[in-house]
Order: sequence, then C-alpha cells, then structure tokens
Amino acid sequence: MKDKGLKIVTIGGGSSYTPELMEGFIKRYHELPVEEIWLVDIEEGKEKLEIVGSLARRMVEKARLPIKVHLTLDRKEALKDADFVTTQIRVGLLEARAKDERIPMKYGVLGQETNGAGGFFKALRTIPVILEICEEMESLCPDAWLINFTNPAGMITEAVLRHSRIQKVVGLCNVPIGMEMGAAQILGVDASRLRIDFAGLNHLVYGLDVFVDGISVKERLLSLLTERKDTVAMKNIHAMGWEPAFLKALDLFPCPYHTYYYKTKDMLEKDWEASKNVGTRAEVVKSLEKSLFELYKDPELCDKPPQLEQRGGAYYSDAACRLIHSIYTDKRDIQPVNTRNNGAIMGIPADSAVEVSCVITREGPKPIAFGELPIAVQGLVQTIKSFERITIDAAINGDYNQAHLALTINPLIGSDRLAKQILDEMLEVHKAYLPNFFIDRSNL
Amino acid sequence: MKDKGLKIVTIGGGSSYTPELMEGFIKRYHELPVEEIWLVDIEEGKEKLEIVGSLARRMVEKARLPIKVHLTLDRKEALKDADFVTTQIRVGLLEARAKDERIPMKYGVLGQETNGAGGFFKALRTIPVILEICEEMESLCPDAWLINFTNPAGMITEAVLRHSRIQKVVGLCNVPIGMEMGAAQILGVDASRLRIDFAGLNHLVYGLDVFVDGISVKERLLSLLTERKDTVAMKNIHAMGWEPAFLKALDLFPCPYHTYYYKTKDMLEKDWEASKNVGTRAEVVKSLEKSLFELYKDPELCDKPPQLEQRGGAYYSDAACRLIHSIYTDKRDIQPVNTRNNGAIMGIPADSAVEVSCVITREGPKPIAFGELPIAVQGLVQTIKSFERITIDAAINGDYNQAHLALTINPLIGSDRLAKQILDEMLEVHKAYLPNFFIDRSNL
Amino acid sequence: MKDKGLKIVTIGGGSSYTPELMEGFIKRYHELPVEEIWLVDIEEGKEKLEIVGSLARRMVEKARLPIKVHLTLDRKEALKDADFVTTQIRVGLLEARAKDERIPMKYGVLGQETNGAGGFFKALRTIPVILEICEEMESLCPDAWLINFTNPAGMITEAVLRHSRIQKVVGLCNVPIGMEMGAAQILGVDASRLRIDFAGLNHLVYGLDVFVDGISVKERLLSLLTERKDTVAMKNIHAMGWEPAFLKALDLFPCPYHTYYYKTKDMLEKDWEASKNVGTRAEVVKSLEKSLFELYKDPELCDKPPQLEQRGGAYYSDAACRLIHSIYTDKRDIQPVNTRNNGAIMGIPADSAVEVSCVITREGPKPIAFGELPIAVQGLVQTIKSFERITIDAAINGDYNQAHLALTINPLIGSDRLAKQILDEMLEVHKAYLPNFFIDRSNL
Amino acid sequence: MKDKGLKIVTIGGGSSYTPELMEGFIKRYHELPVEEIWLVDIEEGKEKLEIVGSLARRMVEKARLPIKVHLTLDRKEALKDADFVTTQIRVGLLEARAKDERIPMKYGVLGQETNGAGGFFKALRTIPVILEICEEMESLCPDAWLINFTNPAGMITEAVLRHSRIQKVVGLCNVPIGMEMGAAQILGVDASRLRIDFAGLNHLVYGLDVFVDGISVKERLLSLLTERKDTVAMKNIHAMGWEPAFLKALDLFPCPYHTYYYKTKDMLEKDWEASKNVGTRAEVVKSLEKSLFELYKDPELCDKPPQLEQRGGAYYSDAACRLIHSIYTDKRDIQPVNTRNNGAIMGIPADSAVEVSCVITREGPKPIAFGELPIAVQGLVQTIKSFERITIDAAINGDYNQAHLALTINPLIGSDRLAKQILDEMLEVHKAYLPNFFIDRSNL
Repeated sequence: MKDKGLKIVTIGGGSSYTPELMEGFIKRYHELPVEEIWLVDIEEGKEKLEIVGSLARRMVEKARLPIKVHLTLDRKEALKDADFVTTQIRVGLLEARAKDERIPMKYGVLGQETNGAGGFFKALRTIPVILEICEEMESLCPDAWLINFTNPAGMITEAVLRHSRIQKVVGLCNVPIGMEMGAAQILGVDASRLRIDFAGLNHLVYGLDVFVDGISVKERLLSLLTERKDTVAMKNIHAMGWEPAFLKALDLFPCPYHTYYYKTKDMLEKDWEASKNVGTRAEVVKSLEKSLFELYKDPELCDKPPQLEQRGGAYYSDAACRLIHSIYTDKRDIQPVNTRNNGAIMGIPADSAVEVSCVITREGPKPIAFGELPIAVQGLVQTIKSFERITIDAAINGDYNQAHLALTINPLIGSDRLAKQILDEMLEVHKAYLPNFFIDRSNL
Repeated sequence: MKDKGLKIVTIGGGSSYTPELMEGFIKRYHELPVEEIWLVDIEEGKEKLEIVGSLARRMVEKARLPIKVHLTLDRKEALKDADFVTTQIRVGLLEARAKDERIPMKYGVLGQETNGAGGFFKALRTIPVILEICEEMESLCPDAWLINFTNPAGMITEAVLRHSRIQKVVGLCNVPIGMEMGAAQILGVDASRLRIDFAGLNHLVYGLDVFVDGISVKERLLSLLTERKDTVAMKNIHAMGWEPAFLKALDLFPCPYHTYYYKTKDMLEKDWEASKNVGTRAEVVKSLEKSLFELYKDPELCDKPPQLEQRGGAYYSDAACRLIHSIYTDKRDIQPVNTRNNGAIMGIPADSAVEVSCVITREGPKPIAFGELPIAVQGLVQTIKSFERITIDAAINGDYNQAHLALTINPLIGSDRLAKQILDEMLEVHKAYLPNFFIDRSNL
Repeated sequence: MKDKGLKIVTIGGGSSYTPELMEGFIKRYHELPVEEIWLVDIEEGKEKLEIVGSLARRMVEKARLPIKVHLTLDRKEALKDADFVTTQIRVGLLEARAKDERIPMKYGVLGQETNGAGGFFKALRTIPVILEICEEMESLCPDAWLINFTNPAGMITEAVLRHSRIQKVVGLCNVPIGMEMGAAQILGVDASRLRIDFAGLNHLVYGLDVFVDGISVKERLLSLLTERKDTVAMKNIHAMGWEPAFLKALDLFPCPYHTYYYKTKDMLEKDWEASKNVGTRAEVVKSLEKSLFELYKDPELCDKPPQLEQRGGAYYSDAACRLIHSIYTDKRDIQPVNTRNNGAIMGIPADSAVEVSCVITREGPKPIAFGELPIAVQGLVQTIKSFERITIDAAINGDYNQAHLALTINPLIGSDRLAKQILDEMLEVHKAYLPNFFIDRSNL
Repeated sequence: MKDKGLKIVTIGGGSSYTPELMEGFIKRYHELPVEEIWLVDIEEGKEKLEIVGSLARRMVEKARLPIKVHLTLDRKEALKDADFVTTQIRVGLLEARAKDERIPMKYGVLGQETNGAGGFFKALRTIPVILEICEEMESLCPDAWLINFTNPAGMITEAVLRHSRIQKVVGLCNVPIGMEMGAAQILGVDASRLRIDFAGLNHLVYGLDVFVDGISVKERLLSLLTERKDTVAMKNIHAMGWEPAFLKALDLFPCPYHTYYYKTKDMLEKDWEASKNVGTRAEVVKSLEKSLFELYKDPELCDKPPQLEQRGGAYYSDAACRLIHSIYTDKRDIQPVNTRNNGAIMGIPADSAVEVSCVITREGPKPIAFGELPIAVQGLVQTIKSFERITIDAAINGDYNQAHLALTINPLIGSDRLAKQILDEMLEVHKAYLPNFFIDRSNL
C-alpha cells in the first residue's frame, strides 16, 4: 500500500448513495488518507452525477479536508492507478428493475431484485459490464481492490473470481450488518459487544452462532425473535414473524431474505398487494430517489441528509468505507463479506463466492472455517449456489438453454414451463442490455 | 446361503400385489428354490390375506411346485429363520393415504403419497413399524435380507440402516425399471440391449447416461423425449412433456416424479382437478383394489390376472423376485436399488440411502461410484436428502419441532406457516398411527 | 461392438508374455471371435518378435482357429481400426530396468521396478511413449479400448486419463489375482467361491474385505496369514510374514508390495543381498528370458511352455484376455483394475487412476464405491498418489524441480539430498529415453 | 469474562520455563489483570516448584504488582474457578525423555521427543494425565480455557477435543513464532510487518504464503533460504540447508521439523552422533536445567535470566501469555495455534486438531479456511494425522495392537518388525507411566 494518499474510484458515482460513501471517507480520513475520489458514471447518469458530485464537494469542503473529488464519464481515465474501485452500478436503471419485478409476478412467481427471476435478470445484465470493468482494471490498476456492492453481489463476486484475472475482489452487502444491529437491539446490548458467525450466500446468509462478550446467546435471541412480529426486517422486506417451532428446530438466525424461501406464498402475496397499492420496490425507490435528488440540489446542503436512510441501502456505503479502512490499516476486525469460499463452507466449490465472516487484513479478507452447514440448510444453499453458477455461465455465454435451466431449478420458480415464458418475455424487454444473448453467432 | 430351500416372508402379504410376487417366484423356481412362503398380515387385513393367500396356493398348485404357502397373523412365527423378508405394508391402509392426499391440498400444497407432505406423513407412520420388524429380525433371523418396497422406500431404507442393526436391507422401487422400459420403447430397441446409469434418491432418480449395446444414446433419447407429450410417465403421474431447452441443458434423463419439482404448479393443478373429478389416487386405487379382490375370489383363477397391471405398481413385486434371485445366484446384474451410499454419490453422507445402479452379488448390492452429480441437480438432491434425514429423526423421536422443520424446508411446501397448519391437522387425524408423537414424556 | 471378428493389437508383441496372451485368446475364441492379432514391436525387438510371432502362429494353427497373426514394426498400420490395443512395452529394455534397480541401491534406497526410485524412472521413460500411442489411437482407432499392462500401470493409466483424449483405458495388474489365488489356497476353498473387495493404488492395493460364498472370512484369513512365513508373495518379492498384532489392527489384507512400506529396512536388505548373490530382478529375468526364447524357437513347440510361469508375470496376459472377454460379452464379473477413480475411493481426486474392484460391462469397468479407506492407510495411499501425480507432470514437462520433489516425498527415499544425487545420476544414464528432460528450450 | 482479576493455573509450575511465563504476565498486566497465579506440581517436583515459585514471587514484587503467586501440590484446589489453565507437564521427567531418545536409536530409527517413536511414547504417557486434568476441570472450572504447551501439543489437543467435554482448549507451539522471526531476519524486515499463512500439524506446519506489508514475498524468501546453510533451525534441531530444486518445487516454507521427513537419513545420523558426543537432547537439557535452577536459587535474582533462552523453548511461555491476552481482550490478532480443524484444512477430519493461523477472539481462536493443502504435502500430513489418531486411541484404550499399527505406519519407522521390538522394550521401561496398558482386564 503506497504511502501517499489513496485514489478511490466509484463507478456509478451518480448514485443517491454517494453522500453516505463521502461521509464514510470523511469521518475516517485521519486513518484512511484519501487523496482523490473519482465519481464515474455513464452518459445517461450525467445529470445525477453532477448533482451528487457537487454535494460531495460541499461535504469535503465543510470538513476542510484535502480530498479532491473528480466527476467523469471516462471510466478508463478514472481507473488509472486506482487503489480501490467501488461499483454501485445499475444496468438499465430503475426502469429495468421495475420490469424485473412486474413481469415474473404476472406468471405468479416472485419478482424481486436479488432473488428468483428478478435477481436472475439483474445478473444477466450486470455481469458482462462488471467483467468489462475488470478487463480495464487488469491493465490500468491490476493491484487495486474491487469492492462491489451492486446486486446480486454474490453472483457478481463469483463471476469476477472465476472469469477475470482480478482476484482482489470483495462483494459487500448490508444485510449482515442489519442483522447485527437488529440482534443487538433485541438483546438490548451495544452492538460492539455482539458478534455473529455468519455463513451462507449473499441474501441467504445464516447466523450460525451469536455471541455477547464472547458467550453464546443464540438460544436467547431465537427465543426473543419468535416473540416478535417481524424477522429483523430490511426496509424493503415485509415484516413477518417466524414460527417458534420451526425456528427452534432450525437453530440458526435466518436473514430477512430467507422469508422468500421459508414463507414463499406469503411473500408473493405481500409483494403482489404492494405492487397494486404502493407500487413495486423499484417504483417506490424511483420516487424516493426523485425527492433525494431534489434535496441534493440544495446548495446549502453540506451533509448526508437523514432522508437517505429511507432509501433502503442503509449502512451499505459505510460498509464499503469500513472495509477499505480495515484493509488499509490491517485492522483485523471480523466482517461478513462475499469472498472466495476456499473451504470455509464445506460442500461448496472452493472457487465459488460465499458470504462468510472474514478477518480483514492488509492481504484482504481471510474467511473463517465453519465446516459443514447444519443439515437443514445444506440443500437450500447448494441449490441457490447451483442456480448462481449456471446463471453466471449463461450470462457470459448468452446461453439460452442454460438460462432456462437456471430459472427452472430456482425453487422460487420450479417450473420449466413458466421459466420459458418468463425467459422469453424478459429477454425481449431487456434486449438492449443483453447483447450476449443476441449476438449473431452464425459466422463465428 | 443354505443349500436347502429358501424361506421367504412377506409382511403385508394380503396386498393385492401378492399374485405378482407369486408369479415371480414360480417362474424363477428352477434357479431360486423357494421352499416356504409366509404371507403375514394384521388382524384388519385378515380377509384380504385369505383371499389372496388362496389364490397364491392355486398358482403354486397349477405350477406343480413344492412351495408351501403359509398364511399367518403371527409375525414372529413367520420371521423365525427366514432367508428373505419382503415388506409391502401400508400403515393406516388406503384411508390414511387418502388423508395424506386430501389435507395438504386444502392448504394449496401437494398431497401425494411419496413426495411432499403426503410422503412425510407416510414416513412418520411407517418407520416405527419397520423398526419394530427389524428388532424382531435381529433375534429371529439376523442374517436374512430385508427387501422393502413400502413407500417412501428411500427413507425407510435409511431409517433401517441408521437406526437398527439390520444392515442387509434393500429398498426397491419400480420407477427405474419403468424408465428403462420407457426408454427402450422410445428408442425402439429391446430392453435387454439398454442400460441406464442411475443415481439420485428414491422418486428423485436421474439417468446419468443411457447406453444401447455399450454406446451412449442419451442425447438421442433426450431429443426424442422432447418430441413427446409425456415424461415416460407412471400410471399414477400425469403425463406432461418436458421443455426442450430445459431438458437439453439438464442433460439427464429425469424420472416421472421430477415433474413435482420441475412442474410444481402444473402438477398441483392436475392433482387438484383429478381429486375433484376421479378422486385422489388413494380413492382410485381403493376401487381398483375392490375389483381386484373380487377377481381373486374366483376359485377358477390360478394366475395373476392382467388387470393387476392397472394397479400402478407394475414390475414392483417382480423387481423383488429379480433382486432375491440375483443375490441368491450371485448374478451380478446391474439393478438400481436403494442402498447405503458409501460414497457412490459424492456430497451425500456415506450412511444415507441413495437410489443408484448397483451390481447385485451374493454379498448384496454393491453401488457403482458416480462421483459428483451434475451441478444443476446437486442442490435438489441435497435438499430432499436433508428433508429425509430430519423426517426420519422426527419419526423416531416424535419430535414436533423437527417435523415442522422438515416440512418447511421441503420445496413443495416452503412455508413455515403452512407447514404448521398441515402438521397440526395431520398429526390429529393420524394420531392412532403416530404413538411417538403422543407419548406422555412427562415422567420419562 | 461390431459383429465381425475383432482386431487386437499388441504393442510390445515381441515380449516373452505373448504366448500366454495367445493361449488366452485361443481358449476364449468361442465367445470372443478374434479375427486378427497384430503383434507390433520396434526395430530392436525385431528378432524376438519373429521368434514369438512364429510360436503364436503355430499355437493358432494347432487350435485350428481362423485367427490371423500379423507381425509388424509399423505401429500405425497395426492401430488402424483396432478394437482392443494392449501394451506390454519396456522402454530401454531390461538394461534400463537393471539400472533402475542398481543405482538407487548405491545410495541406500530401494531399487525396484515399480516402487520408489526404480518405478519413478520407469514412469519417466514410459509415459511419453504411451501418450504417443494414444495420439495415434485418437486418429486411427478412437473407439478402441487400451488395455495397458506395462508398469507402473497405475501411473500410466492416469497419464492417459489426464493427458490424452483416450478415456477407454484400463490398467491391469496381476497382483490382485495373485492375492485371490493365495487367499483361496490358504483358506482351502476354490477360488470361484471367493471374492475380495479391492481398493487402493496399483502395487498398493488392499483387500478391504474377503468373502467366501458371500460370507466375510477376512478375520479368519488374517489370522491364518500371520501363522505363515510369507505375505502371499509374488515370484519377485521376498517372502516375509506379517507381525500378528500389526495385521490384526490393520484389519486389511495387504498386497505383497506393501512389504516395501511396512518392512522397508528388511526389504532393502533382502534386495541388497539378492543383488549381490543372484543379481537384481532384471538380471535374473534377463537370463530367464534368454532360456524362454530358446524354447520358443523350437518349431515343434505349439503351446505356451510351463516355464513361462517362472517369469514372474503369471496370469498377466490371461488377465488381459479375461478383461477383453468381459467387456466384449458384457459379462459383469467383478475384476480389480486400474481405472478413473470417480469417487470410488473418497479423498483421491476423481480424475486419478485407482486400483479398485469394478464390474466389467460392455461400457467398460464401473468402479464400486468403497467410501473412505480405513484411517490407518489413508495417508500412505494419499502420499503415493501425490508422488504419482507429480511424477506424471514431471515426465510430461521434463521438469527437473518437480522430479526432485516427487522423489523426495516418496517415503522410500525421504531425503532431498539423496533424491538429488539419484536424480542426477539416473537422468544421465537414461538420457536417451528421456528426451523431455533434454530438449533445448532456449528457443521455444 | 469476569470483571475482577483473573485466576491463572499453571500445571507443571515447577518447570524452568515459569520465569518466562511470569515475565509475560507482568509485562501485560495493564491489559491483562491477573489476580492470582497458581503454580501446581507433583510431589517429585516439589523442590523445583519452591525454587522457581520463590523467583516468581520476587519478580512480581520487583514489578510492584498485586499478583498473588500460590504454590501447591493440590491440583484440585488450584483448578477451582480458574479462568485459564496452562499445562507444561512432563510425565516421567527428563529421564523418560532420555529413554524415548535412546531406545529407538538402538533399532536404527529416530529417537526424538515429538516425532517418531519418541513422540509416540510421550503421547502415551501424557494423554491419560491430561484427560484426568480435563475431568477435574469439567467440575471445577468448566468455562476455563486450557492452554497446553506440553508436547506433543497437537495430539494432546486432539485427545482433549475428542475425549473430554473441555472444548475450550488450545495447543501452543513456538515453532511458527520461530519461523516468523527467522523469516523476518532473513528478509531484513521487522517481524511486525510480516505475516505467514500457516497450515499443517504440530511440528509439521507449512508456511503456505509469506507477506510483508500485505504483499507476498514467499518466492524471495524461499530463494534466500536456499542460499543458507540452515533451515531456520530451532535450538534443538541440527541446521541443514534445503536443496534448491526441491524447495522451489515444494513452493512452501517448511518448518524445522520437516527435516525429519525430508532428510530422514541425515537427521538420524546427526542425532546418532550427537548422542555419542554431547548426549541426547534430554541429557543436554538435564544439565542446562540444573544450571538454571542453580541460578534461580539466587535470592538476588528478580528477573528471568538470559540463560533461559538457551533452554530451547524460547518464546513458548510468552506465546501462552500472548494468547491469553488476545482472548481476554478480543485482540483479533492472527496466531498459529493447535485447534479443532473444522474444515480449515480440507481432507483432515473436522474434529481433529490442526496447527493453523487463527484469528484470536474473545470466543477463542477461529481458524482461517485454507482449502486443500498443495498436493505434494497432502499425503504426509494425512499420514501423520492418521498416526496421531491411532496413537490417541491406543493411549486411551491401552491397546497394544493399535499401538503396533501406529508405530508401523509412521514413516520414520516403516517396519512392523522394528515397531514390535521398540514397542515391547519401551512399554517395559515406561511401565510405571502407562497404567492403561497394564490393567488386568480379565475381570472387566
């Protein structure tokens, strides 16, 4: 790690999350000497980039720090000699997300950004772009760390690990942090005293054990959890409590997204109702974003506005700063991130990405070995990992048959007939973002 | 294996399948010298036992063979010094099966005898009875082979392997034989020229490869399959064709029961409709059985009547005879049976039962090593195996929480809320057959 | 398999073993319709080829069979459209073997053809030649089976499996057959009633269990074995009995070559003494071979002479015929052969060759799943497999460092210093047969 | 962890190492508030306990700390409510060690305290005593951590993990620390900038990678190593350099004890010569210890004397303090310790002890997942682990046959005949310390 100040590149810099990222770097500046932050976006995001970029500069100015904020549409210029690259892109913008959510629902299956058919198409659109970024990094900043928090974070991390030479990649998610905060609140202890052993996949992570001051309190937490009406929910997931007998036998702390698998029917109905009343999540977020950007425009605003926390991705960007900070300072704190499995979870391929508690060192995250997952969850984790691996291959090769297979084996779909109908309609509407599927291979 | 004639014991001997079993022994008599066949049943089955037992005796007489057919309600007397014990019992009779089918359907999930909630309750009722039989075998005929074809055959085999000292146990199913016959017919070749490498679980078995005269014809078979409207269906499974792109990418020959997982919604609807029109399978079978027993009563009948093939379990009893014959003669033919995994399928515990091609020797079935299953199916097989293991433990311990967990993780249910409702109602209606769940443990 | 008669090609056809091979084909002719046998050899072996080829023709003539025996130095002509190719070559002839035996002994470590430093150099010389043959087969007879009985048979099978497109390859060894015959003799039963579950590596295979008429007699066999002064020895392995307590705790039937690992010091001394008195094995064989070829020249001789059994490779060629016969007729007998592991032995890579009981079908050998080896032998098997894998890579890449590593980790050497000395001297003396190590890579 | 001061118990408190332990606690007192240290010993060690105990009290007094030092022969009194228990016992004292070293050498195999026959007998004597301590801990201080640095540390840790209810156990060794210091010195960097990824077994641990400031320098280190005449040796291991080609291909940083496996013959000769000239290690240590205790008696001495570093166990006791400190303060530094594998090293059973880099938290050490070991070392690690597991079982059950098996499969012995001779002689001379082997089981 060089001694001079760091160069950070944020791809998708025009995102509404950027103020949180800025806040994160500003408050850690004394230990993490950032010299330049490059906010990169594409032509369609230019206006938002300028709005949020100006706010970023005002924030730095208010903090009286010598951080230079660059705004650019030229990704290569930005990547040159970067130390850390963060990605928070959304290929096809919220419009595409709305389709991911609406279309599957027509066929009676879950439309959601990260799981099921929705997450599948987001992966198909995003993976080729991320691999393009990696290719540029290979020549422009081969030693930089890639910190991805674009969803579906697990699949994107694995795509990079298996299909590029960039191996210094970490996928971040705010779900585990939310679980830690939720558990601390339920138990009535300060979060600093609590630690969770996390293992699983992105949006399918389990708390294997929960400690306060080094003593396991899992049993107590699970018992308190069943007395509640919610599942330590995320902003964007409907709150529904777990059945006590099920949770007792499961003997694990599930993540909010587990409701999609253990309450499939109920979640589908809730999503369906929400889509009729308040709109799908993309539609809600779209209007939230609009108000946020109105706020950001205010030249008097020099701080991250509290309204951003309504946005749903709370802690996300802060998690990225925290991770960069820990790598840079060899902090060796334990963070759950998406990384190369390397045996941490038995039965999952060594080269697959898993979401697992890691000690964060200057060499990067080192995953803790958790052995075999409890038998009750091995199958689901294996199934989703199989779905992810096949999806990644389909995304890269534009392989229609593999895509059909991946959708069919996803337990939220479970139908070769519906899979075909959804696939055909979605390929058509997302055509512009899925070039791999529409290449004329006749003369290859 | 002793030189004198063999003693065969058939528990559930009053079953309508018994004539097929008799036919099987009669036609193999020259190589398989059966001296005694003991047909055992319970008080409630006495009448049927007498009807079918008389037919059995007429069949032997017609064949002019020195096989003695004993009818008894005294299981211990029958088991004494047995060489082979076959089990074809139905705890709770067809009435219980009808409830297994009807009740889940009320909650919108699959009711079917071997998969999902139906199979779960059949396991709960059957496992304690089978383990009781094993306990008797341990003292009365410890060296006998237990050939089980009571469903769910995989779980029952595993319960015996893991929870009794009887290790010479084989679980039989007619699905793989049906697949071989179906494939031979589709390919237009004699079945003797065809061989399938089978691996998976009971009612979840895949043809990994298909050979004619030693040459793989899998690709051709899968391609012909997609041109058909059915899935090489069983009598009791609705015929629906596979989507070509899915099947091509799957690159395996699925079994008819895979429709429950890869066409979940459609199967649910078909079952629902059938239940309204012709009745559930149990209800259909009940009337079929009634006619069969009318036929069996005919003192002129000295053969297995052709109508038995409508019953649904075609080849089942013959498979049992074939297996006994192969063990007795060290025939070394390759048969797909349910046996101890022992590494044949990687990733599944060594002590679990799997359904896999085995070479049948006088030492019993030796499973062929197939390594890792293809990635697309690892997760489903793992999930169902996890469901099976937890179900077995719940059955033996009468553990409500584990039962709730097993039902919830089954992908045909996928809801802790529905699982609880179904569990509560079903435990109540099957109460008489689930003593483990209703023991007063307060003073244990 | 075609209907017309078979074409068999034997590379190294001038070997003294060929009469046994001929006898094997002649006695199985009624079920195995061999039409042509091509005996192939190299220029240096021309004289022997003619002697043994003439004997082969006289044998066929005496048997009045329409088998055509071709003698040729043109390997490609022979391979064209072959059905089975057998390899019994010896690169560098017995002269090279004598060096394999003598030189390591100078450094105080074992010199033996298949284990330790001797086997290592035999592998280095042989693997490139076998891969050349495979390359020719890929274009001339891609569907033929390659039956290799050149030593070290395990490494050669694995080299073919991992480094050529020929996957229909089987490695044969007469050790397991010898163990079966020895065990039958000790137990006083006919070999046809006995079966051994074999698992391990070539020349490191264990009998996991031993059955007579389907009943385990392992305990009795091990107990009888310890009463003997020998280890069911091969002609070429010194007879020494096993210590009773060791064998009882091992609870496995070791193969004769296990003496090299479990009696290292004693074997070294015996080999050392033998080399001083009767000469090394190669030197003994050389004189045996000379007498054999004198016999073969006799134009009156029309049968395999009994003296051949002194040669050491008893049953070897017959094993090849037996295997070909079983594949051709789909006999499904159980034979221990070297084949792709595919999970048969847990912990060994799926693509490695293992020596394991297989059911022999028209699709080839299907290995039986044996799960984990007993803990006491896992390490040794793993060590030798590691040695084999690294040796294969060194042979193919001519990699000096990897060669040094392989020799050092072999437990019969166990010294980086001795490994270097042996390697340097042996590379020099075998230079002519190790082109991969002496390529000028400077302008690659 | 309680708020009041800690109670530390040191079993074998009369050891010459105790002053280092005291120094360690004294210098960390501000963060690690030790209130009581109980030094426990047995009757035979009473005199030494008093000498070293007095020195310990003088050290505390000089440091003006409120640590109470208790000396006792009553182990149970000491264990009551302990927070940390350290074990540094030597069953049979140095006399037994001298026999461990001398007797195997007579038979031409390695006599050394931790590897081969020597380590085997040390395990046999020590394991029953450690399990007795664990049994006392279960009732007197069930939540205490057991920090063992008695050799063979790996086997003792595993014996506790698998055969007692004490799961909070860590085995410590100074070898990895020595490797880190050695590597830092060779590379000319401060040790604080260096980190090694350690994985393997106790006294068989490899540096998988070596980092300075987060960048891998393994290649450079290995290259510098081969230019040296030593192997980063321990005080008690003869210095011999590695062969460059071997080390390059191995591509790992071996530990000093690897010389026993990769330079077996040379080490045997060196040990043999040393035993004739300066005496075996036990004999050397005995005289060193004598001088140390002379020094300790000096009432003016209030510090750890520098001569202790000659003793051979440098850093050992300090490592124990460092570990206790890290657990107590949740320091999350990365330390190589012996702990439950839990999948950290693939292929080794989950419940076995391995020596592996762990992050040290208030919940204890959490092992980092390293996946598969490189193929070249898998076999050796597996072999030694098999040897260890069988040895542990033999020690607990007093099983002669298993003991014979363990010794035979150890690659430093490799002979069932020598194993028997050594076993018989050693069992006799150590009889007093091996009650499990001499119980009269006739009336059990």
